[in-house]
Amino acid sequence: MKKGGHWDEKGEVRMVDVGEKKITKREAKAHATVKMSPDTMVLVREGKIPKGDVLGCAKIAGILAAKNTQHMIPMCHPLPINWVDLKFTLNEVKNQIDIESEVRVEAKTGVEMEALAAVAVSALTIYDMCKGIDKEMEISEIHLLKKAGGRSGTYKRKSRG
Amino acid sequence: MKKGGHWDEKGEVRMVDVGEKKITKREAKAHATVKMSPDTMVLVREGKIPKGDVLGCAKIAGILAAKNTQHMIPMCHPLPINWVDLKFTLNEVKNQIDIESEVRVEAKTGVEMEALAAVAVSALTIYDMCKGIDKEMEISEIHLLKKAGGRSGTYKRKSRG
Amino acid sequence: MKKGGHWDEKGEVRMVDVGEKKITKREAKAHATVKMSPDTMVLVREGKIPKGDVLGCAKIAGILAAKNTQHMIPMCHPLPINWVDLKFTLNEVKNQIDIESEVRVEAKTGVEMEALAAVAVSALTIYDMCKGIDKEMEISEIHLLKKAGGRSGTYKRKSRG
Amino acid sequence: MKKGGHWDEKGEVRMVDVGEKKITKREAKAHATVKMSPDTMVLVREGKIPKGDVLGCAKIAGILAAKNTQHMIPMCHPLPINWVDLKFTLNEVKNQIDIESEVRVEAKTGVEMEALAAVAVSALTIYDMCKGIDKEMEISEIHLLKKAGGRSGTYKRKSRG
Amino acid sequence: MKKGGHWDEKGEVRMVDVGEKKITKREAKAHATVKMSPDTMVLVREGKIPKGDVLGCAKIAGILAAKNTQHMIPMCHPLPINWVDLKFTLNEVKNQIDIESEVRVEAKTGVEMEALAAVAVSALTIYDMCKGIDKEMEISEIHLLKKAGGRSGTYKRKSRG
Amino acid sequence: MKKGGHWDEKGEVRMVDVGEKKITKREAKAHATVKMSPDTMVLVREGKIPKGDVLGCAKIAGILAAKNTQHMIPMCHPLPINWVDLKFTLNEVKNQIDIESEVRVEAKTGVEMEALAAVAVSALTIYDMCKGIDKEMEISEIHLLKKAGGRSGTYKRKSRG
Repeated sequence: MKKGGHWDEKGEVRMVDVGEKKITKREAKAHATVKMSPDTMVLVREGKIPKGDVLGCAKIAGILAAKNTQHMIPMCHPLPINWVDLKFTLNEVKNQIDIESEVRVEAKTGVEMEALAAVAVSALTIYDMCKGIDKEMEISEIHLLKKAGGRSGTYKRKSRG
Repeated sequence: MKKGGHWDEKGEVRMVDVGEKKITKREAKAHATVKMSPDTMVLVREGKIPKGDVLGCAKIAGILAAKNTQHMIPMCHPLPINWVDLKFTLNEVKNQIDIESEVRVEAKTGVEMEALAAVAVSALTIYDMCKGIDKEMEISEIHLLKKAGGRSGTYKRKSRG
Repeated sequence: MKKGGHWDEKGEVRMVDVGEKKITKREAKAHATVKMSPDTMVLVREGKIPKGDVLGCAKIAGILAAKNTQHMIPMCHPLPINWVDLKFTLNEVKNQIDIESEVRVEAKTGVEMEALAAVAVSALTIYDMCKGIDKEMEISEIHLLKKAGGRSGTYKRKSRG
Repeated sequence: MKKGGHWDEKGEVRMVDVGEKKITKREAKAHATVKMSPDTMVLVREGKIPKGDVLGCAKIAGILAAKNTQHMIPMCHPLPINWVDLKFTLNEVKNQIDIESEVRVEAKTGVEMEALAAVAVSALTIYDMCKGIDKEMEISEIHLLKKAGGRSGTYKRKSRG
Repeated sequence: MKKGGHWDEKGEVRMVDVGEKKITKREAKAHATVKMSPDTMVLVREGKIPKGDVLGCAKIAGILAAKNTQHMIPMCHPLPINWVDLKFTLNEVKNQIDIESEVRVEAKTGVEMEALAAVAVSALTIYDMCKGIDKEMEISEIHLLKKAGGRSGTYKRKSRG
Repeated sequence: MKKGGHWDEKGEVRMVDVGEKKITKREAKAHATVKMSPDTMVLVREGKIPKGDVLGCAKIAGILAAKNTQHMIPMCHPLPINWVDLKFTLNEVKNQIDIESEVRVEAKTGVEMEALAAVAVSALTIYDMCKGIDKEMEISEIHLLKKAGGRSGTYKRKSRG
């Protein structure tokens, strides 16, 4: 696959050249879930996790991650992010924390990876804050909920089975 | 919760002081899964994703992420990592790529978060490489498989339902 | 404060959404002071600090810090900085080095934090370069001198008591 | 000063070679103050600053800064930090927030700069969180309170005039 | 050279203020060469270097480096890069790998340093991947091939002696 | 090369597991050259380059680069560097600046890449400082001069043709 001469044919990674794309308003929303034991859930809700404010720390880590996406995901572009937000919902029936991120930008390409990086790192931070108590936690359902702006128009996730 | 006077009681985040812990050999293994459409799966297997070598890029991103964990997860410690590795298995029955990481260190605290950061960022990179084709992909089953070394001994994940 | 259900009401940090703001020319100026012993002051002036060129190192650290502000201050936005400059004045009456920074940008939000980060990190670097000789040094009077551009117009610091 | 031939004599910056130093337990404590208007002070105390949890965000920023010190201050060494902590005291007489950091390590050199970077970046973050309301805030009294461990023994700041 | 009073005259580093420049399409191309033993060359060509895919890793490192240029080279500006690409040519007559980078942006200043950083870090990565086998490798001929866009127009390297 | 089933056989990058290596004192020295026009050389020597202190800026950039090597070169390990130094020699016969770096550490693996990263980034910085005047500059002769410590003993570069 990598013969003598030019090594630029197949397999090789490549960035998308966004030079011809228009600067437009774009946004993306993503989701992640952290499943935990009922006992851990209670401690999070009551603010009794020994390492402190789980969701406050997770939110800040998620915002910082969105801004660091270009350095974390090799083929991503630097983007002048206008806004990052994360919301957390404690689901005490399923014993899980649902995380939703929203990222907005005015740029030549979208912020899907920024939104996904935000929820993923936020979920990892929840794991870190609670891991002294519950190593069985699981992060799942990381997916894109919505993307708007740009030539391809609006995308909404079909199913959440 | 944050009255006048000292603001250091509850809620506030805190790092674990690892000063009294012993330097021992420690390792951690973690897992993540990226679910995709059958068509995307075929393109990955055949090396035909337009952005190039999906797993090669995902592996490098995962190794870099493990080394950057202390800056990504606020309460993590800097650690002199000896080794990071990731393995990818293409499951063409379930149409998913399974990622397993292994991280080794000789330090005062463990590398669970490094192993989890490696698989999470590796999975995000797979998403990024394939998202032009398949926006419905989902990352799930991010969990710790094993941890060894240190006072609390060896942990193995009980169930993988 | 963080009850079940949505955790998004109070206390939680949030970025300002700058999407509706106009891109305009903006600038900010900030100040910091490093107070030191008369002997340390002489060594700085005469270029005899053993760690070398104190102000040269401090200026570069300040410029790099301004460009890294978005990763250092969690709620800051990435900004396409046009210029960062720092000036140092040796005040041999008060035995202090005064630092002034100026940052310019054409963006949707201002560069106050970039200007403040520049002087603060520059002052920390002066401390680092001289600390082998003088541990009693003190950094103070870090404040915004001026800000211009944007909807809120020009701000100038009232008093410098 | 920079004649032909070797450019390595004076003025040039240089790192301290810590190779001959012993690995010992070391700690450092540092202090910073953020002065604000009485109205801002009330909003911080009551948790009513629109950008959210001021001190929670400032603490996380301070911990991350301590871990990033080697990249922020050019001549600093990478250090395997065991612990970083910050405490905030609301002084409603002087209308200021006092920040104290403590950093611990087992290494060949001390963590003074890590402790100072923690309080400085934490103070900058307080400024950022409140600057929409109060641009006149001032950061001052950034100094080392204490340093222990290593050949030079324990240092305590003499005066706090 | 650094007398009392203002320290801002000579010697001191300074960023170029790009505020008055126009946002235009700009591109830059750069080159580097890694010379190695004939045996190493064969191993690279045949994909038998024990550390794995040399050029795949070098390409990703080069792309990440281009995006990190502003933090690596002190006086560089942050730039909203549209595209980074690197091509590798195995020259089995001269036993060397030639690297060419291309970077595109729409900004107030050019991407020469981004293009040069990409080839330099890519070459360092080739060295790292092969150094277990061949410590005598040499990186050379790092230069700018072309620059286009902006007031100064197109530049092409004259000679490649 | 990347068939179904496990993707972990060939081509894939891998870190060296340094867990079984001994912690010993190690050092490395590296070299780079920046060739320029006679006129540029004179301006550097006389301190008249408009962007300021070329070698001062290049030295700081080189030291910071050595400390950032693990994040710049994907397969490198984090290392507790004891010392980084760079020396510059102005060769006015050949119209070139020679850069030599030296890096010391006490660790399980060597600092060759840190020494090479230091000279490479230092050379790039010289290019950046002078590029407004001389775009034809060339960086070359980046190689390892010496490596000592560790099981493989001392290496010295054979020839410098």
